[in-house]
Amino acid sequence: MTTPNHAPRPMLTEAQLSRLPSEHPLRTAGTDRSPMIRAMLGDRPEHPPVWFMRQAGRSLPEYRAAREGTNMLESCLTPDLASEITLQPVRRHHVDAAIFFSDIVVPLKVAGLDVDILPGKGPVMGAPFNSMERIAELPEVPDSAFDPIREAVALTVEQLGSTPLIGFAGAPFTVAAYMAEGGSSRDHLGPRTMMYRDPEAWDALAGWVSRVSAQFLSAQIEAGASAVQLFDSWAGSVSERDYREHVMKYSAGVLSAVEPYGVPRIHFGTGTGELLVAMKEAGADVVGVDYRIDLDQAAERVGRDTPLQGNIDPALLDAGWGVLQKHTMDVLSKGKAAAAHIVNLGHGVPPGTDPAVLTRLVEFIHES
Amino acid sequence: MTTPNHAPRPMLTEAQLSRLPSEHPLRTAGTDRSPMIRAMLGDRPEHPPVWFMRQAGRSLPEYRAAREGTNMLESCLTPDLASEITLQPVRRHHVDAAIFFSDIVVPLKVAGLDVDILPGKGPVMGAPFNSMERIAELPEVPDSAFDPIREAVALTVEQLGSTPLIGFAGAPFTVAAYMAEGGSSRDHLGPRTMMYRDPEAWDALAGWVSRVSAQFLSAQIEAGASAVQLFDSWAGSVSERDYREHVMKYSAGVLSAVEPYGVPRIHFGTGTGELLVAMKEAGADVVGVDYRIDLDQAAERVGRDTPLQGNIDPALLDAGWGVLQKHTMDVLSKGKAAAAHIVNLGHGVPPGTDPAVLTRLVEFIHES
Repeated sequence: MTTPNHAPRPMLTEAQLSRLPSEHPLRTAGTDRSPMIRAMLGDRPEHPPVWFMRQAGRSLPEYRAAREGTNMLESCLTPDLASEITLQPVRRHHVDAAIFFSDIVVPLKVAGLDVDILPGKGPVMGAPFNSMERIAELPEVPDSAFDPIREAVALTVEQLGSTPLIGFAGAPFTVAAYMAEGGSSRDHLGPRTMMYRDPEAWDALAGWVSRVSAQFLSAQIEAGASAVQLFDSWAGSVSERDYREHVMKYSAGVLSAVEPYGVPRIHFGTGTGELLVAMKEAGADVVGVDYRIDLDQAAERVGRDTPLQGNIDPALLDAGWGVLQKHTMDVLSKGKAAAAHIVNLGHGVPPGTDPAVLTRLVEFIHES
Repeated sequence: MTTPNHAPRPMLTEAQLSRLPSEHPLRTAGTDRSPMIRAMLGDRPEHPPVWFMRQAGRSLPEYRAAREGTNMLESCLTPDLASEITLQPVRRHHVDAAIFFSDIVVPLKVAGLDVDILPGKGPVMGAPFNSMERIAELPEVPDSAFDPIREAVALTVEQLGSTPLIGFAGAPFTVAAYMAEGGSSRDHLGPRTMMYRDPEAWDALAGWVSRVSAQFLSAQIEAGASAVQLFDSWAGSVSERDYREHVMKYSAGVLSAVEPYGVPRIHFGTGTGELLVAMKEAGADVVGVDYRIDLDQAAERVGRDTPLQGNIDPALLDAGWGVLQKHTMDVLSKGKAAAAHIVNLGHGVPPGTDPAVLTRLVEFIHES
């Protein structure tokens, strides 16, 4: 007998479909019947679908070769290179989705800000956006500025067929944290102080990021992404109260801006065990869980009807196959507590990971 | 009427006292009747006692002057300098305790390892301890190697009178994480992978750190420290299961090694909301809480009979007096949920903090 969970569901309403171009893969290639999208909609497809955060990246020799001599942001904004890098892990690992190769500061570069990504150091800004004067300088960004993104996405989905592409953007808190500090920091005191000392400046900054993040995700969806992930790397540095008072609405702004398209929205951050409910309430269809708590605990917190994504510990990718296999079986088993389970890591693929382990892991998960 | 909480308690048993030298301040200066130590023992003294993590440090101009031209580890191991730096914030802010000026990697330097602290980068090791071969090279350290520490502590308590000195050590996970990686990292994959790939090597490494940390704290207590804090900066990067299976026993080893002295033991880490119960069970008399959860929540988790330390958000030190005052009142009010409350920040004093704010904050807390 088929359980209600296994019944085919219509993916998009007519109104939603009409918002997508006629050549969108949800209409033409049928990515909505792929195991990945079905799971994101609460279904349990024939095999557990899997993708890996940062699957397109330094763990792959073909990535290092493709990137050679091109800096990170330039790579993200060169359509055929970004597309090639996005496709590499799908070819190699046979994962169930591609994740668009990009970076959380790409919208800042698109907006014309002085930003770069330095190897081993992460994003650096020419000067921090830590005052109302500075923040007032932030430009409105025309949608056309995202054309290189659209082009890269279109090139990619053309080759992906029924394998969905997941679009990607950094969440406002994380992006605004880099902007407020002018770069990386451990404690994110800059944005956290600004929320209290100058709530208007914080609102202006996070509101601006919220708008460009929404433009960035919309461009990806319109060009062919079948799902999106909003990635809040640093959300775990705030208390739940601060999250609800000073962070959540900007993420909700991004998620609600793309809601009309009807594609599933994943919301993920690290160290966010205590924030999962708020992150769901911000407008997530799928809640991403880091490796710090078990999926059955997460399901209890957010409600068992919410599809969960996660949460193989990246530290175990290099711990030997036996250990990894046992851990993966545990993750799959605990994932059954949720309505649906998109298998992933609990954080990004570490750069030193042996890609053969990832390929084998996908195979093992598909056979589970 | 005096509640049982306010009744004077004997601090140490005769057996415990006999383990301390006759000139120990707990015997001579009566630090056990100080507001700080009374609160750590579960009492509510006339005013809430307060100290600040990293109160001895870069926020003070007199610290920057004293340190000029001397590198960090050299400063920690120069008794009169370490003592002077330890005393500075007590003189300036009138806090209720001094915290011994040191660093979590000091025991590694004392053990003769190739370690340094680089400005803006943190600890760096000559080569990582990431294999059994390397770990087997770790020396047993004679207690006499900690003589510069004893000397600094003795010089300090001589001048502190009835104000207690809190001793300080890094917890084994955090120190071993630096050793396994050869320096700082964000995700601590090195130690977390080692626990699974090579549990024997992990055990040898964390066990070694546990022993030298116990020696380091014992030296401080024997020379006059009236309490100790075990500081696990990175504990928040492991799940509760991993903490209990691969981390807790090494911290418990340190805490139980100093238990016979009878001085209160504080256990603190950041991002540890989900680990507080385990951190208490490791052998803490006082549980330190970071700024991410409220003290009443923390009290509910660890039990209301446990004295709590914390948890003013360091991000608010620079948010304006009105905001900080309101927040501090909230922290004091929520701290009433616990048997006793040692007021502190939820993490260290940021280097850019205006020291006048800290002085004013101590005054405000003392008048509360």
